[in-house]
Amino acid sequence: MPELRKDPIVGRWVIIAPERAQRPTDFQRQEPRSPGGLCPFCPGNEKLTPSEVLAYRNGGAPNGAGWKVRVFPNRFPALRVEGALTREGEGLYDRMSGVGAHEVVVESPDHLLGMPDLSAQQLEAVLCAFRDRMLDLRQDGRLRSILVFKNQGAAAGATLEHSHSQLIALPILPRHVQVEMTGSRGYFDNKERCLYCDIARQERHDGVRLVCENASAVAFEPWAPRGPFETWVLPKEHGSSYEESSKAQIEGFADCLHQTLRRLDAALGRPAFNLMLHTGPLNERRLPYYHWHFEIMPILARVGGFEWGSGFYINPTPPEVAAEYLRKAQI
Amino acid sequence: MPELRKDPIVGRWVIIAPERAQRPTDFQRQEPRSPGGLCPFCPGNEKLTPSEVLAYRNGGAPNGAGWKVRVFPNRFPALRVEGALTREGEGLYDRMSGVGAHEVVVESPDHLLGMPDLSAQQLEAVLCAFRDRMLDLRQDGRLRSILVFKNQGAAAGATLEHSHSQLIALPILPRHVQVEMTGSRGYFDNKERCLYCDIARQERHDGVRLVCENASAVAFEPWAPRGPFETWVLPKEHGSSYEESSKAQIEGFADCLHQTLRRLDAALGRPAFNLMLHTGPLNERRLPYYHWHFEIMPILARVGGFEWGSGFYINPTPPEVAAEYLRKAQI
Repeated sequence: MPELRKDPIVGRWVIIAPERAQRPTDFQRQEPRSPGGLCPFCPGNEKLTPSEVLAYRNGGAPNGAGWKVRVFPNRFPALRVEGALTREGEGLYDRMSGVGAHEVVVESPDHLLGMPDLSAQQLEAVLCAFRDRMLDLRQDGRLRSILVFKNQGAAAGATLEHSHSQLIALPILPRHVQVEMTGSRGYFDNKERCLYCDIARQERHDGVRLVCENASAVAFEPWAPRGPFETWVLPKEHGSSYEESSKAQIEGFADCLHQTLRRLDAALGRPAFNLMLHTGPLNERRLPYYHWHFEIMPILARVGGFEWGSGFYINPTPPEVAAEYLRKAQI
Repeated sequence: MPELRKDPIVGRWVIIAPERAQRPTDFQRQEPRSPGGLCPFCPGNEKLTPSEVLAYRNGGAPNGAGWKVRVFPNRFPALRVEGALTREGEGLYDRMSGVGAHEVVVESPDHLLGMPDLSAQQLEAVLCAFRDRMLDLRQDGRLRSILVFKNQGAAAGATLEHSHSQLIALPILPRHVQVEMTGSRGYFDNKERCLYCDIARQERHDGVRLVCENASAVAFEPWAPRGPFETWVLPKEHGSSYEESSKAQIEGFADCLHQTLRRLDAALGRPAFNLMLHTGPLNERRLPYYHWHFEIMPILARVGGFEWGSGFYINPTPPEVAAEYLRKAQI
């Protein structure tokens, strides 16, 4: 059974998921692959995955082919829906049972397309699937937050080639969301304005870190990026909970995200990357100080593991330089 | 000129070091290598590096061969000693000039030895070099903290093969130290005890996460590790500033660190790893609540980039399992 453990010093929760455990010798680098040459995410192979919890299809039976986007529980989940949410101490330490959900969002029936290759319309369907699953999962009162993320490429942690995202629903608020909320709340208490809205305004005004924008959203390189080509995409309209977005808002946002991914893909030569949705807690909606957004972190191999492990970052590429490459990218 | 920039939301400082900048096409994965077949860190090639700031040698002239450990400024520094420490805003944002120091510690004259291959005596000399450089650098009142770290292997960010550590002196306190200090200070205010001392006591008592110990130090897998085989090494005697350690304390600590590195090396088959010293601010010594220590993070390729980028961690290897492998390792 997976469990959540809290670091007693810095308060960081981690998931310990021993059902995914490996022996020390199992940690060799491997390219993402399809076991036995059969991709469980391809149309026609639906029986190789757990039953779907959501699919967008034109007619056709559940768990058959004919879908556009398909969502099902992860076969090797980091957390499980079953069981009571128990909390206990062990001397100094705190743990919680690994109650939650871990789902896979297959982004396209086409095995060969990466997320940057999807049309804006297909990407919109993926973003709608995120929202629809979040609206469903937030009915479970045990769950406090949802992480939506994507690992593109082996260097970013992908283990299967067919393009997919993941969704993890947690009974806790992860540290990075908590830290963002504390920071933006302090600013709001002082100024009565959303810090993210102010950042978006300054980026659009300065222009030097801007990547692209449309009526709904803006993409830019943040002022203090952790690594080369770290990119954020924010909706222009304030909102703290992604799942509260309307269909029209998602459509506009998808178009800007699509452009951003195309530009990163072109400028960096199809890099591995992590993409992550930062969104507010499930039980606190319409916060005036928090602003949902996506963060994209290309995994560029010459940039050391040191930065990730230490919590301290040395970045050789100023965001202004990265933004210029991205603006000039041929897409 | 490098600069320090602060993220306006979470307060994280990063170094933007454009003199190390690369074009997008320069980010291919490369094995660590010696440019032109000549290793600048090998004895006899001292003229290929900047002039040494410290070396342990038996006689012989500075910047010649015959040394045991040698320290010199990084040829491509992330920060520079020259120039005034200026702070300025840019709209919402904060920056500081990149004043500081960036030094390289060559750990052995032997090109072929990794840090785990060094004898306990040689490792002790390396740890003494860290201390001696810190004692010298802290005389510069502009500097507030020192990071000592090592990237072993390409996957961990090493760009030269010959085993070396790095030392970065900063005019700010990095976020990860600040967060540790805040957490441990809260505990101390409540209990009048050092949290790290209590953790070491519990780990020695429980034993399940213990890796090894001697009279001076204890090595264990932390309760909530960010990844498989994350390992901490703590001195048993309380101290918040590494550079205040005596020669005898460093000797005992080196022996325990040596054993720990040997065990990780044997159990995981010579993994890439990052090692980092966590120590208190230069201008605040003998803090009752903070406790210097080393953290070691093996870079195991099957574990995704996601965790590093997101600030959220899923770990497939319980620390109790990892500790057992390390205790049983044949060294």
